Amino acid sequence: MAKNLEISVLLDFYGEMLTEKQRDVVELYYNEDLSLAEIAAHSHITRQGVRDSIKRAEAVLLDLEERLGLVRKFREIQDGLDQIIKDAQEIGRFNQRYGGSREITRRVEEIIQVAGSINE
Amino acid sequence: MAKNLEISVLLDFYGEMLTEKQRDVVELYYNEDLSLAEIAAHSHITRQGVRDSIKRAEAVLLDLEERLGLVRKFREIQDGLDQIIKDAQEIGRFNQRYGGSREITRRVEEIIQVAGSINE
Repeated sequence: MAKNLEISVLLDFYGEMLTEKQRDVVELYYNEDLSLAEIAAHSHITRQGVRDSIKRAEAVLLDLEERLGLVRKFREIQDGLDQIIKDAQEIGRFNQRYGGSREITRRVEEIIQVAGSINE
Repeated sequence: MAKNLEISVLLDFYGEMLTEKQRDVVELYYNEDLSLAEIAAHSHITRQGVRDSIKRAEAVLLDLEERLGLVRKFREIQDGLDQIIKDAQEIGRFNQRYGGSREITRRVEEIIQVAGSINE
């Protein structure tokens, strides 16, 4: 079974929509990188049971992203914030080169800090 | 039945998680501002049926927000972007007052444009 690395991201957004058992199994598989056999031993279910549970959870996560599109939306926001941070850094460099207003420096730092904290 | 104005916002985020019938009824009630009686006449169900359908849909939407918290997250992002836009405008004013580097003006405009387009 090939690991779909996107699932780990979907789990961050939509994990609360899974059952506790599904979430546990998917987290062990994707975030802790355990094998199906290790998860089976750990959860007292068969290897096939683990595989089925993961497949069902993946289907739920992919369906949620298709309906709600939050990972896509947050990635667009991240791209915008990266651009804002670059622009602010450029303003900072220009400001240093020509005079260096302290007020501009302060505002540039605030933009970078706020954009960075949204991006976390 | 008091209208919960928050529902309209939740509908924007999570509408795709409702059944088509629930979504129709809730949209008529919250977005088109029809009365229960008008929706009942329009959908050929009883007024009580409309009310029950809206109540169920509201419960689904509120549960989704409690699990996923997207409206809360997006509001935090919006607050951050509003702050970034204010900072960029201040930089623009300082830049005009002291010299007025065209490169800084261009970057300030880009920040305001990018932050505004994320905020839409």
